[in-house]
Amino acid sequence: MEKLIEKIKSANTIAVIPHINADPDTLGSCYAFCEAMRLMGKRAVCYVEEIPQQRFQFIGGEYTLYTGEVDVYDLCASLDCGDMERLGKRAEIFNSAHDTINIDHHVTNTLFAQANYVEGDAAATGQILCEFLPKLGIKINDTIARYLYIAICSDTGCFKFSNVESKTLRYTADLLEYNFDHAEIARLLFDTDSLSVTKFKAELMGSIESYADGKLSVIELSDELYEKYGIPESEVPNVVDIPRRVEGTEIALCFKPKKDGIGVNFRSNSDVDVSKISIKFGGGGHERAAGCTVHEGTMQQVKRAVIDECVRVLENL
Amino acid sequence: MEKLIEKIKSANTIAVIPHINADPDTLGSCYAFCEAMRLMGKRAVCYVEEIPQQRFQFIGGEYTLYTGEVDVYDLCASLDCGDMERLGKRAEIFNSAHDTINIDHHVTNTLFAQANYVEGDAAATGQILCEFLPKLGIKINDTIARYLYIAICSDTGCFKFSNVESKTLRYTADLLEYNFDHAEIARLLFDTDSLSVTKFKAELMGSIESYADGKLSVIELSDELYEKYGIPESEVPNVVDIPRRVEGTEIALCFKPKKDGIGVNFRSNSDVDVSKISIKFGGGGHERAAGCTVHEGTMQQVKRAVIDECVRVLENL
Repeated sequence: MEKLIEKIKSANTIAVIPHINADPDTLGSCYAFCEAMRLMGKRAVCYVEEIPQQRFQFIGGEYTLYTGEVDVYDLCASLDCGDMERLGKRAEIFNSAHDTINIDHHVTNTLFAQANYVEGDAAATGQILCEFLPKLGIKINDTIARYLYIAICSDTGCFKFSNVESKTLRYTADLLEYNFDHAEIARLLFDTDSLSVTKFKAELMGSIESYADGKLSVIELSDELYEKYGIPESEVPNVVDIPRRVEGTEIALCFKPKKDGIGVNFRSNSDVDVSKISIKFGGGGHERAAGCTVHEGTMQQVKRAVIDECVRVLENL
Repeated sequence: MEKLIEKIKSANTIAVIPHINADPDTLGSCYAFCEAMRLMGKRAVCYVEEIPQQRFQFIGGEYTLYTGEVDVYDLCASLDCGDMERLGKRAEIFNSAHDTINIDHHVTNTLFAQANYVEGDAAATGQILCEFLPKLGIKINDTIARYLYIAICSDTGCFKFSNVESKTLRYTADLLEYNFDHAEIARLLFDTDSLSVTKFKAELMGSIESYADGKLSVIELSDELYEKYGIPESEVPNVVDIPRRVEGTEIALCFKPKKDGIGVNFRSNSDVDVSKISIKFGGGGHERAAGCTVHEGTMQQVKRAVIDECVRVLENL
C-alpha cells in the first residue's frame, strides 16, 4: 500500500480505467477515485471502453470514450479489474503509462500492475476505497460518498449477498453520514426496469416450468424472445434468477440456444452441488452456480436430458 | 427507559404481543425479546392473533395462538404496535397484566402502556431492541441476532428504504458478528415468491398500461385475477410497486374493485405530490403514497378520470 500511495502522490496526470462492460462497482469506484485525485490537485480522466449502459446513466460522473489516441500518463489506475483482459483496448493506455496501480477485490486478480492492492474478501472495490482514500489523506465529500455507496450497494445486491460482512456495513454507515439520496440509488439500481424488460420478464415468469414437486424450476430463452421485446441480452443479466426466486426451488435452470449448442445455466438454492451436474454435461462451475454448453441434440432433447438428471439428483437426496 | 427496565426486572411471567397481521419486524422483535427474557430467567410467551403467514414460517420462533383464555401475567410487552387496536383481541391479555410496556417505532404511537419506549425515527422496532437489550444487561447471542436481523432487514426493504440511517447499518453490522446466514434470510424475505404469486405478478407485469410518455404506469386488479391464481390479497402486498418499478415512471396507479366503489392506489417516484390528486377524488395520503375510493362510476369511468387527471398534472409540471 505504501508503494501505491507513493505512486499516486508523485503523479500529476492519471488515467483511470474501469473494466469492460462496466458495472456500477467499477464505475462508482473510478468516479470516486477521479474525484479524490482532483481534490489532490491532479488531472484525472476516466477512460471507458464503451458508453456505459443506459440503466447506469443515473450514476453521473465524467468519462471519456477511448478511441485509440491518448497521451502518455504519469499513472494509470485500474479499478475492479481482475486481469489485463478486462482493460480491453485500454491496455494501451495502461502499458504506455509511467506507473501503474491495480485496486481490486477479485480473488483471482493476476496482480498485473507495478503496485497492486487486492483484497479478495472485500464485497466491492468501493469498499476497498472506503479504507484506502482516507489513508491517502483524502477527506471524503458528498460526491465521493455517493459514488462509493453506488459501488458497494450494487456489488452486494443492496446488502443481500453473502459477501456482506460487518465491515461492509460499517463503511457504508460512514458513507450515509454524507448528503445523498441512498434510497433513490437503491431504487434505480434494483427496483427499476424498462417497460420492455418488464414485459420480457413477465413472459418468462409466466412460462416457468416446475418439476420434482417444485424443487426444480426451469425457463427457456430464445432469440425470438429478445427480438420480440427489442432488448439486447446484456440488458437482463442473471435471467436464471427468475426461476430461482420461486418458493421451494432447490435447482433453477435456464436453457438458451447458442451458436454451438444449447447453453444451460444452473443455480442451487440448497445443498445440491450443481457443478457436479453441469460437469456431466461437459460444463463446470461452483456449488451454487454452474453452466455448460451441450453441443449435440435439439433444445427439447437437451432440456429433457438435463431436467431428468436434475430430478434424479433431487429425488435421491 | 428506567421505568421499562424496572418493570421488566421485577416481572417473572411475561406475555409478548406482536401486532395483528404480523410482519417480520414485529415477529423478529417479539421472538428476540422472548429469548432475551428467557436469558434473564423469566417465563415469556409470545401470543399471536392468527398463525403467521406461510411465507414467514422460516423465521422460526415459538408462538402461542391466542384463543381467549390466558392467565394473568406480571408484565405484558407490546412490540411494534402503534396503538391498542393493533393488539386485536389480545388487548385482554394486555389489560389484565399487572404491568404493561410498549416498544415501538411508529411516530403515531399513542403511548398506550404504563411505560413506553417509542423512537419514531428508528427504521424498525428491531433496531430499538439493538439499543435496548444491552441496557437490560442482555448479552446478545446468535439466536437473538438472527431475529433482530430479520426485523431490521424486513422493515427497511433490505436496507433500501429512506428510513435507513448510519445508526441502522451500525447496529446491523454488530448483528453480523454473530453466526447466522443473513444472505439466506434476505433471499427468503425478498427474493422468494410462490409459483402462483410469480404467475400472478407476471400477468400484472404483462398488462401494465403506459401513459404520458411513460411517466404514468397503471395496472388494474380484479377479484377474478386473485381467484385465477388462488391467492389471497394479503399474500401480495404493495401490488402498486409493480407499475412503480417501470423506468421513467413518475406516478404509478393501481385500480381495484371494492365493495363500495373503485379503490385507487397512488405512488410517486418524483416530486409530484400524489396526495393532492387523491384528495380530488375524495382520498388522502402522503406526497409519495396516497389512496382513495371512488364511490360512483364503473371501473372504466374511474380509470379514465383518474388517468386523465394524472396526465394533466404530469404535462403541467
